[in-house]
Amino acid sequence: MQHAFVTGAAGFIGSNLVDRLLAEGVRVTGWDNLSTGQERFLAGALQHPQFRLIRGDNLDLPALKTAMQGADFVFHLAANADIRDGWNHPEKDLQQNTIATFNVLEAMRANGVKRIGFSSTGSVYGEALVTPDRPTPETDAFPVQTSLYGASKLAGEGLLAAYAESGQIAEAYIFRFVSILGERYTHGHVFDFYQQLVEHPDHLRVLGNGTQRKSYLYVQDCINAILHVTRQGTARDAKHHTQIYNLGTPEFVQVNDSIRFICGALGLKPRLDYTGGDRGWIGDNPFIFLDTKKIQATGWKPKLTIEQGIIQTLRWLEANRWVYDARH
Amino acid sequence: MQHAFVTGAAGFIGSNLVDRLLAEGVRVTGWDNLSTGQERFLAGALQHPQFRLIRGDNLDLPALKTAMQGADFVFHLAANADIRDGWNHPEKDLQQNTIATFNVLEAMRANGVKRIGFSSTGSVYGEALVTPDRPTPETDAFPVQTSLYGASKLAGEGLLAAYAESGQIAEAYIFRFVSILGERYTHGHVFDFYQQLVEHPDHLRVLGNGTQRKSYLYVQDCINAILHVTRQGTARDAKHHTQIYNLGTPEFVQVNDSIRFICGALGLKPRLDYTGGDRGWIGDNPFIFLDTKKIQATGWKPKLTIEQGIIQTLRWLEANRWVYDARH
Repeated sequence: MQHAFVTGAAGFIGSNLVDRLLAEGVRVTGWDNLSTGQERFLAGALQHPQFRLIRGDNLDLPALKTAMQGADFVFHLAANADIRDGWNHPEKDLQQNTIATFNVLEAMRANGVKRIGFSSTGSVYGEALVTPDRPTPETDAFPVQTSLYGASKLAGEGLLAAYAESGQIAEAYIFRFVSILGERYTHGHVFDFYQQLVEHPDHLRVLGNGTQRKSYLYVQDCINAILHVTRQGTARDAKHHTQIYNLGTPEFVQVNDSIRFICGALGLKPRLDYTGGDRGWIGDNPFIFLDTKKIQATGWKPKLTIEQGIIQTLRWLEANRWVYDARH
Repeated sequence: MQHAFVTGAAGFIGSNLVDRLLAEGVRVTGWDNLSTGQERFLAGALQHPQFRLIRGDNLDLPALKTAMQGADFVFHLAANADIRDGWNHPEKDLQQNTIATFNVLEAMRANGVKRIGFSSTGSVYGEALVTPDRPTPETDAFPVQTSLYGASKLAGEGLLAAYAESGQIAEAYIFRFVSILGERYTHGHVFDFYQQLVEHPDHLRVLGNGTQRKSYLYVQDCINAILHVTRQGTARDAKHHTQIYNLGTPEFVQVNDSIRFICGALGLKPRLDYTGGDRGWIGDNPFIFLDTKKIQATGWKPKLTIEQGIIQTLRWLEANRWVYDARH
């Protein structure tokens, strides 16, 4: 990898990836429409001679094709990640996830870029049908989608695979993430809980009944995994040029555990107001726990536990309260 | 079901479904952009007082919403079905299958239509990973897509499920078809072989090496299955409001068997020119055989064998040579 093209470069994971790639000597073109990305996350990168940021939208295929010229690897991270709010603007997942991914692939084809890493999600498993209380493997039973977000990521995965298995591109790496957290995290339950506790330290509103079991992964561990696998080139000589990896830690926590970690770290004992029910919102999955044997078999493993990742995230939010104002 | 809205109403399966619904006393609004559909297929329906045909495109959401008013069931059959030619116009599957399905669902939401039947495809299984030589069940391992067509249908399935599992619609029936044939069939290998044999009865060009194993289902059996299941309402009280059924016969044939049936029926002994290789085109699946236990458990079973279906199709093509000129 000599010149990486990163969509969503100003986002949470994207900007961390950009910094890492630059540190490792890779030239980087960042692409972002700055709709939710923060240029401030790229403050360091923008000082680097090997980096350029192009402001553009994945729905603008001609501009995307031009911007991608010269790249030899695409990391496609740009997405609408607002899983909870899908039904208020159902076209958003279709456009920013499905159609955007199609455009990225078409831009690759136009430029002869042969390799891609794609951020998918454990949400594509819907509510795992066959193994409801065990970690979900990549080869789980054909899932039933439960959210527009999951459906749009599934559609993106299908497109990558069709391009790779038809030989239009050479290597497609699909990463099904659990929730990622860490530096530059700007949405999710730690973000919301911290905001609430700053505003009213004596009580905390919790979506659902608190028993939802979820998995999280620290962003630097996530990036380690992505770079580890794409550099090994596991899709190169495999039967399938599409390689799919669950990314997560080999553990899960309840929302109530997470509340305990956060309140403990902040020294607070708020009253907990649960909205009730076994899921936080329509389409929420009460149990997310991915089987990560496949990625671990490549030699990667996470450095931080979920608890450590949550605390790390909290510390970053405490030091970067500006993100609450910057968020659109 | 009192008033059905049928997309792709002038198509092969759509027009047969329209005729059947009208015969059973259901009011029908047909919707078709007539890009590949044949108004002539609706000659009978257009005489029926309970039928109206609206010419329109699934990409025109406002028109679609208006046309769907008053319907209580949607059969979404309109699609780009040209699986072989995907890479010459990759945006076609995205637009006519994925985005079109999204628009159909949005039009349903706008009109409060709660039930849908959707024509998906066995191609969503890609090349079945876990059970390569056995019939593929609906709960097969999470597949890797091998064609744009399969990927676009998978995306459509995901959208239906997201709408149904989130309660935006009440019942979603997904039918994964093998290749359908019978009256009004206008593309596929019987169509191509017959055309060749009319033009040059002494030789036949065969894509691949002829050993590809494929499954077929007669269109009237297909429609029986769709109506049988949707009327039982199997999605109504199930845990999942998305019910998925493979549709096919419990058998498969080799391309070479099919050639034998066709040539035998026509009394021809052409020289066979194979293009070679174990698949006919990029993305062709050398083995399609779906496990149909689930649909058979509802009480449906096919009336025609694959051989009978192929002969029936051939007889119809012989009597309707006009479709070769009418095809775009």
